[in-house]
Amino acid sequence: MFTNKRDLYVEWGDCDPGGIIYFPRYLEYCDSCTNQLFEVVGLHKPDMLKKFDAGGIPMIDIHARFFVPSQFGETITVETGVSEWGNSSFVVHHKVWKGDVLAAEIFEKRVWVVRLPGDPVRYKGAPIPQEVKDRLSGSVPVGRK
Amino acid sequence: MFTNKRDLYVEWGDCDPGGIIYFPRYLEYCDSCTNQLFEVVGLHKPDMLKKFDAGGIPMIDIHARFFVPSQFGETITVETGVSEWGNSSFVVHHKVWKGDVLAAEIFEKRVWVVRLPGDPVRYKGAPIPQEVKDRLSGSVPVGRK
Amino acid sequence: MFTNKRDLYVEWGDCDPGGIIYFPRYLEYCDSCTNQLFEVVGLHKPDMLKKFDAGGIPMIDIHARFFVPSQFGETITVETGVSEWGNSSFVVHHKVWKGDVLAAEIFEKRVWVVRLPGDPVRYKGAPIPQEVKDRLSGSVPVGRK
Amino acid sequence: MFTNKRDLYVEWGDCDPGGIIYFPRYLEYCDSCTNQLFEVVGLHKPDMLKKFDAGGIPMIDIHARFFVPSQFGETITVETGVSEWGNSSFVVHHKVWKGDVLAAEIFEKRVWVVRLPGDPVRYKGAPIPQEVKDRLSGSVPVGRK
Repeated sequence: MFTNKRDLYVEWGDCDPGGIIYFPRYLEYCDSCTNQLFEVVGLHKPDMLKKFDAGGIPMIDIHARFFVPSQFGETITVETGVSEWGNSSFVVHHKVWKGDVLAAEIFEKRVWVVRLPGDPVRYKGAPIPQEVKDRLSGSVPVGRK
Repeated sequence: MFTNKRDLYVEWGDCDPGGIIYFPRYLEYCDSCTNQLFEVVGLHKPDMLKKFDAGGIPMIDIHARFFVPSQFGETITVETGVSEWGNSSFVVHHKVWKGDVLAAEIFEKRVWVVRLPGDPVRYKGAPIPQEVKDRLSGSVPVGRK
Repeated sequence: MFTNKRDLYVEWGDCDPGGIIYFPRYLEYCDSCTNQLFEVVGLHKPDMLKKFDAGGIPMIDIHARFFVPSQFGETITVETGVSEWGNSSFVVHHKVWKGDVLAAEIFEKRVWVVRLPGDPVRYKGAPIPQEVKDRLSGSVPVGRK
Repeated sequence: MFTNKRDLYVEWGDCDPGGIIYFPRYLEYCDSCTNQLFEVVGLHKPDMLKKFDAGGIPMIDIHARFFVPSQFGETITVETGVSEWGNSSFVVHHKVWKGDVLAAEIFEKRVWVVRLPGDPVRYKGAPIPQEVKDRLSGSVPVGRK
């Protein structure tokens, strides 16, 4: 499994009146980290969707566990990789670290979809292209191209 | 189990370039529906936190499954109730309907917390007050007071 | 000027660690109120865009003034109307009330756009359809159709 | 005027069904850039608020103009500096660049506030500390400390 690590500054606007990250923001962080994972292995998402004529990688199942809260002004580290491959679905695993402490763990189950002809917002699952699997598995040398 | 139903208009700003609800917004909807559930049974959240000297009801585990996408301008219905009670934790169950079709299902595991003295953002779990359990279980007649 | 009034509950997730509405959420509220204004006068936005082959009503200028903060659990009232018509642009004026107190005032300058052929995200301004102006000016009886 | 430049990747979740940045996200970007400006000149916001016993720097007026839309997967550059100092208020000026093209311009008028005793969400304006002015004016050498 190829993993990408990314430091994130916890923004004022991502925290709630309790002073800690409002949990849906956590899931936005993870979504952003998934996109960055793709970028890092050479799959710039807009180009990738065009190249493979895909409609996106929508979420079908998400499971998040929060162990330690984080507050405004802290920096957290998100470690992201694909932990499981199906035919058209895959699981992205995020570990969120505060230093050495595991603060949260998130599993995103996503599906590779193509648009249904004649309908701009209907999709159906489709086999994940082998190149996408190869790059995200670390079997293609990492680079932005 | 007492449940509350609420219609929600899917906002332009809650949808992504794929034309469907961006999934973290779904979880914001649910958080809002949890707050409304409390309101409806007479537990106005700011007052409740003050009355019981509590720090909030932070999420410790969330599991969401998305079956059918929703798009801008549609109206969805969220049905919300507490499906499980622990000593200091509880599970809020949301069913999201598009007409008769179950579009998504979300389980929020939350914990009743009190602030640790001398630290504005550290909390610890505490027993859920009986009144809170009673009201959310439907054993107290519903009213805004 | 036809105006629409709407009560909004200030959500936990819309407030920041200072305990008050995080200002970009205010602007989301207003965007939502603009959409509701259109709905109320019979212009369901997805249908309207299709009918007039339009690309949207993107913002080109926004000016907001915040007089009194609002906090979690409060209910505010937003009063919305189109205060100015140009050929392809128009100004939506929002007044945010806390009871009798004007809490904020927002001016959105938007433009009616059509998509440029062959490019999914490029737009150009176009004359606002007379029916749209008439309905939002209150010269067509209000109804959802 | 000291200015800070920052590259931002336009996230999928920050774009709307029109495929471009949803405008309130733009204002979140700017808020984040204001915080980073403070960081860069040695004013870590949580520490700064504690040190000067301040309640925050809430927005009282915001004016944004959007010239060119940005879409998912693009990188924009935000240039941020304080362009005006009052006694308790100040103006943060953001220029958003897409390469050499000015895509947006945002003026945030903020006020330095202290908490009113006995009320967790009421604030009043107070004189901006000279050290804050000095650092943001570039008269103190830049460093994270």
